[in-house]
Amino acid sequence: MSASLRSIQKSSFCSSVSNFRGVGVSMVQGASRGIGLEFVRQLLEREDKGHVVATCRNPNGATGLLELKRKFSERLNILQLDVTNERTIEASALSVKENYGSINLLINASGVLSLPNELQPETTLNKVQKSSLLRAYEVNAVGPIMVIKHMWPLLKAREGPGNERDFAVVANLSARVGSIGDNRLGGWHSYRSSKTALNQLTKTISLEFARKKDPILCILLHPGTVDTDLSRPFQRNVPQENLFTKEFSVHKLLSIIDGVKRSDNGKFFAWDGQEIPW
Amino acid sequence: MSASLRSIQKSSFCSSVSNFRGVGVSMVQGASRGIGLEFVRQLLEREDKGHVVATCRNPNGATGLLELKRKFSERLNILQLDVTNERTIEASALSVKENYGSINLLINASGVLSLPNELQPETTLNKVQKSSLLRAYEVNAVGPIMVIKHMWPLLKAREGPGNERDFAVVANLSARVGSIGDNRLGGWHSYRSSKTALNQLTKTISLEFARKKDPILCILLHPGTVDTDLSRPFQRNVPQENLFTKEFSVHKLLSIIDGVKRSDNGKFFAWDGQEIPW
Repeated sequence: MSASLRSIQKSSFCSSVSNFRGVGVSMVQGASRGIGLEFVRQLLEREDKGHVVATCRNPNGATGLLELKRKFSERLNILQLDVTNERTIEASALSVKENYGSINLLINASGVLSLPNELQPETTLNKVQKSSLLRAYEVNAVGPIMVIKHMWPLLKAREGPGNERDFAVVANLSARVGSIGDNRLGGWHSYRSSKTALNQLTKTISLEFARKKDPILCILLHPGTVDTDLSRPFQRNVPQENLFTKEFSVHKLLSIIDGVKRSDNGKFFAWDGQEIPW
Repeated sequence: MSASLRSIQKSSFCSSVSNFRGVGVSMVQGASRGIGLEFVRQLLEREDKGHVVATCRNPNGATGLLELKRKFSERLNILQLDVTNERTIEASALSVKENYGSINLLINASGVLSLPNELQPETTLNKVQKSSLLRAYEVNAVGPIMVIKHMWPLLKAREGPGNERDFAVVANLSARVGSIGDNRLGGWHSYRSSKTALNQLTKTISLEFARKKDPILCILLHPGTVDTDLSRPFQRNVPQENLFTKEFSVHKLLSIIDGVKRSDNGKFFAWDGQEIPW
């Protein structure tokens, strides 16, 4: 890790962790906007304790997070993390380790559907590019898995009074279009297959945790079609009643995370709690 | 395409296509050894007509193909194709177009499970590397899809007498470990997720062909655990009765390809014809 990166990570902590008292710690990766930012907001607002580590590629430009930081300065920490840059994942893990020792919940909310001149949801095989397939895979599938790899030693059940469960939770944001069994329209090759691979990788990891009796449960979540920057260019054919606010979707997803049981390990749930076929 | 590449592709045809009479043409991609080579052999041996285009990364080193070429010089053509190099895919498509006009069957048999110093089937998340995930995805998922993209305009139902079906077939070699629903052991993250993504991409493409009423059916095939270079380092825990010869497996897979129906489009079959869950 470069000295400058280390100093960024350290400085963002200095104001807030000095009196950390060991209550629950959640990490939201991909928290600058959309669903990730809303997770941070609801996690902070729904109780008066509990810390949130919010990561994003560019903390200085994350206006939504900086606004929350003014309101919850003691309980919110913002770290720089780019899922395509493993050094920043390692740096974040080190920072969390030094400042909290462990986390109880990891939400991987980052994801990409389109990028100017690089990635567009494909309408036909003729438009599928190798570079787009690889880019979507790197961000949507590889990225969250590398985050879990480096955070794994820190994922612990929450200790102390008021702790109602004896496992940590990893929740990866997937998407219904990643389902092969539910694929009836085709298209969106790069995004679709990256989420399908994320599903397989999450299932694979959940099996290792279970086999090793490491008390970490992994789940996959489909948030519905949510009115965010990611989906906005593609909302035209979505009926209004199926287009959710991020407040509604995240409220539903947090209910699923709150209620997760051991038998849910490795499963893929929609916002309404229904299991989605692979 | 470079002049040298074009000359390689042209020269491999010169001895055999001058008197091409329009009987069926199959293309086997990844044909230098293992299951791919066995597909070529059985396709050539089981009838006295029909042409096979066999592609591999290094034709000069493909001793098995060169041996078949001596026996079936008129009916076998060997082309250089590396799924990670799109120029070679385009060059092969152009060569096939110029010499045959169309193909009726495309079998994507290439695949990678391990590469010295680059890719090993992972036994734990701790050993998962970003580079391995991307490499397996590039070869096993992206590669076959780019081949289909460029061969698409050439995939036609076989014409003329003796043609018993009115569609072309694309068969992609997948693997049961690519199934998420059937994943009970974990591990092999890179290989597993690349095959899962191949499944999703194949399903996605099959839907486009069906929607456009383009008479091409796509299927995914699990060959069983076959005694080949790919599986040899990992056969230790496979009971002898579950380890197939390539002759047996390919015979079974060709039966599936021969019997494919429109309702099979986009499905994933094991060597014994049983459908595998996603």
